[in-house]
Amino acid sequence: MEKGVPKKWGFQGNKELNVSAISVRGVFNKLLGILNKDDKRPVIRLCRADPTDFSCFKTTPLASDAVAAAVQSFQFNCYPPTVGVLEARRAIAKHLSSDLPYQLTPDDVFLTGGCTQAIEIIISALARPGANILLPRPGYPQYEARAACSGLEVRHFDLIPEKGWEVDLESVSALSDDNTVAMVIINPCTPCGNVFKYPHLEKVAETARKLGICVISDEVYGHLTFGGNPFVPMGVFGSIVPVFTLGSLGKRWNVPGWRLGWIVTCDTNAIFQKTGIVDNIKKCLDITTDPPTFLQGAVPQILEKTKEDYFSKNINIMREAANIFYDRSQDIPCFTCPHKPEGTMTVMVKLNLSLLEGIIDDVDFCVNLAKEESVILLPGVTVGLKNWLRITIAVEPSALEDGLRRIKSFNLRHAKMP
Amino acid sequence: MEKGVPKKWGFQGNKELNVSAISVRGVFNKLLGILNKDDKRPVIRLCRADPTDFSCFKTTPLASDAVAAAVQSFQFNCYPPTVGVLEARRAIAKHLSSDLPYQLTPDDVFLTGGCTQAIEIIISALARPGANILLPRPGYPQYEARAACSGLEVRHFDLIPEKGWEVDLESVSALSDDNTVAMVIINPCTPCGNVFKYPHLEKVAETARKLGICVISDEVYGHLTFGGNPFVPMGVFGSIVPVFTLGSLGKRWNVPGWRLGWIVTCDTNAIFQKTGIVDNIKKCLDITTDPPTFLQGAVPQILEKTKEDYFSKNINIMREAANIFYDRSQDIPCFTCPHKPEGTMTVMVKLNLSLLEGIIDDVDFCVNLAKEESVILLPGVTVGLKNWLRITIAVEPSALEDGLRRIKSFNLRHAKMP
Repeated sequence: MEKGVPKKWGFQGNKELNVSAISVRGVFNKLLGILNKDDKRPVIRLCRADPTDFSCFKTTPLASDAVAAAVQSFQFNCYPPTVGVLEARRAIAKHLSSDLPYQLTPDDVFLTGGCTQAIEIIISALARPGANILLPRPGYPQYEARAACSGLEVRHFDLIPEKGWEVDLESVSALSDDNTVAMVIINPCTPCGNVFKYPHLEKVAETARKLGICVISDEVYGHLTFGGNPFVPMGVFGSIVPVFTLGSLGKRWNVPGWRLGWIVTCDTNAIFQKTGIVDNIKKCLDITTDPPTFLQGAVPQILEKTKEDYFSKNINIMREAANIFYDRSQDIPCFTCPHKPEGTMTVMVKLNLSLLEGIIDDVDFCVNLAKEESVILLPGVTVGLKNWLRITIAVEPSALEDGLRRIKSFNLRHAKMP
Repeated sequence: MEKGVPKKWGFQGNKELNVSAISVRGVFNKLLGILNKDDKRPVIRLCRADPTDFSCFKTTPLASDAVAAAVQSFQFNCYPPTVGVLEARRAIAKHLSSDLPYQLTPDDVFLTGGCTQAIEIIISALARPGANILLPRPGYPQYEARAACSGLEVRHFDLIPEKGWEVDLESVSALSDDNTVAMVIINPCTPCGNVFKYPHLEKVAETARKLGICVISDEVYGHLTFGGNPFVPMGVFGSIVPVFTLGSLGKRWNVPGWRLGWIVTCDTNAIFQKTGIVDNIKKCLDITTDPPTFLQGAVPQILEKTKEDYFSKNINIMREAANIFYDRSQDIPCFTCPHKPEGTMTVMVKLNLSLLEGIIDDVDFCVNLAKEESVILLPGVTVGLKNWLRITIAVEPSALEDGLRRIKSFNLRHAKMP
């Protein structure tokens, strides 16, 4: 300790926060820190789902102009209502209802600071002593981190790579007990890159109903599909089981930094109202920050005016990226990709360590790859699967090709001699 | 329960959230809900520190234009760094350093979603099992709510109305023990409306040092002073005791809905670094939402370009409001205002219930006032002082006069007969 500094200042603070060290952002920051500064090639980041470095993923000027107009109107400088600006909630209800067999109302919609805060709020609202939640493996570590902060026990069910990453519904049933409050499904599915089919989602809904648990459907990648399976929102089954749908502008509009998301109750039997969970959400929102009011004020324009050709252009780029990835990854001996990506911005590949010399696991692979090739991937352990990798394909096609070439060189350089 | 709905869906969720029902926003929502819809007069909201309804409190176009330019530049659509955009942190460090005897660096600055999220992050970073925090009474209930969420025990020290709302330093010393991690001071002081003097703040710093606790200085109203006492940032004493300074754009720029705030370490001995608290803050930020990147991108323009005459115009309006309030409140028999407001947007008045017929407490006063006069005040119990009232004076002078006239009528109508 510094001389003259009271000894007590040596305390170390909250240990539970160590759990939260497992975040995509935290791991990304660490990998950024070990890059070789002498490597003059551009760093290729296949780590976070943030394609905004590339001009082909630029958002529509219609969206940014709507935000500019809202802030320059001086109509949206006030505190927002707890649940969000009414017009924004109405627009989101209408937007989502077009895919549902019933109409959502503004009362079903709660605005949040991106899907990140939507996860935080929903976990806080459901947590109670002794309760547990069922999360997918692989998944998105924000759920685990927020559950740890809220003292909510986590139980993992598997997504099965051999079955196109379908949910292992038997394990869901086996894990659930009287203290289980919810299960999470991410559809389109990050990190796996698959899109769940209607009959499978219906089985998920029926399983949850049988178990008496609600479904949290993370649809942050809603409509971002470019394979054979169309996107089916879980809310379609809102009469079978109460569903919380989480979403945001970030992915579909290529503005992850805008942090505008939502929680929506898809619950035709009003179970969330009756059980007090809606009140809990409002209480949580009362004591947390909000998306800026002017950004909320821009939501109706953004949702109602964005042209279909903006979305289809994005989808076409993602389809091309998926093709490049799936094709080139076949040439990387230590990679096995069990399912060609057909949605989201990410994909999982299995690492065959027996083909590599001196690489002990997925973290070691990512660390050495970052140092030697200036390519950043996310170790699978971050999303729950050790010795797999999560790879973001939402980069310009030429950068993706370059990145995969560097990974191939790395693989060849570290290949185990026969 | 609904027929066919599994019984288990009847669970009630997190009981701890009931603590959080005590929020300014929550109480405000409740009072809004009981207004008399047949009263055709405008509702006068003297409840929340949000003056944006009134054109005289319009923000400078320079600020809104800076945000519009940032979002239309397409340079700030990416995820922000965990700690915030570097240029924004540099601008805040420079801005705050002009009042300090040393230079802050960008590494001292962490961007947050308004002061609301700054409070959430700092409480989460400091909480650990068995720890406690010292909060002022009256205070700002967000601290109590977030402490409850983090399992941090709260102990209240008093602000003394007879001494211009100075901190009762003896009670600070008496309340502190080996598990005390911090004390909070709000300066300029909401809800009381006073501004702490240099010698008193120095004593606060010395007391905290003696006790081995850090100081969280909530300066969300920094520079919003219009009486005899100038604003002295607690960071001036950052060599005596490590200080977290919390602030935001919301109050000084009249944009509470923008939700752009900061946590700043004023700590010339780097104690927060050495004790790991800075790491804890980063871990918390890794798993929470952020202010939108484009809003962060606008911060340098806003801080560097806003003209002094914009601030002085605001200060003049607030000084006029303070004069009107202090003058007219003398005519309201049940009010005692122990200290003329000289900073912030709020003031505390003591309610003399013995002069009123059929009003049982501060909540009852506010409920009936809202119903009968369409004037919304905040019951003192919300900020820790039963049978006081927190009144916001940051409204157009004519609305303030109208509101105080209605309160006077209410008082006369409910006056106890001698």
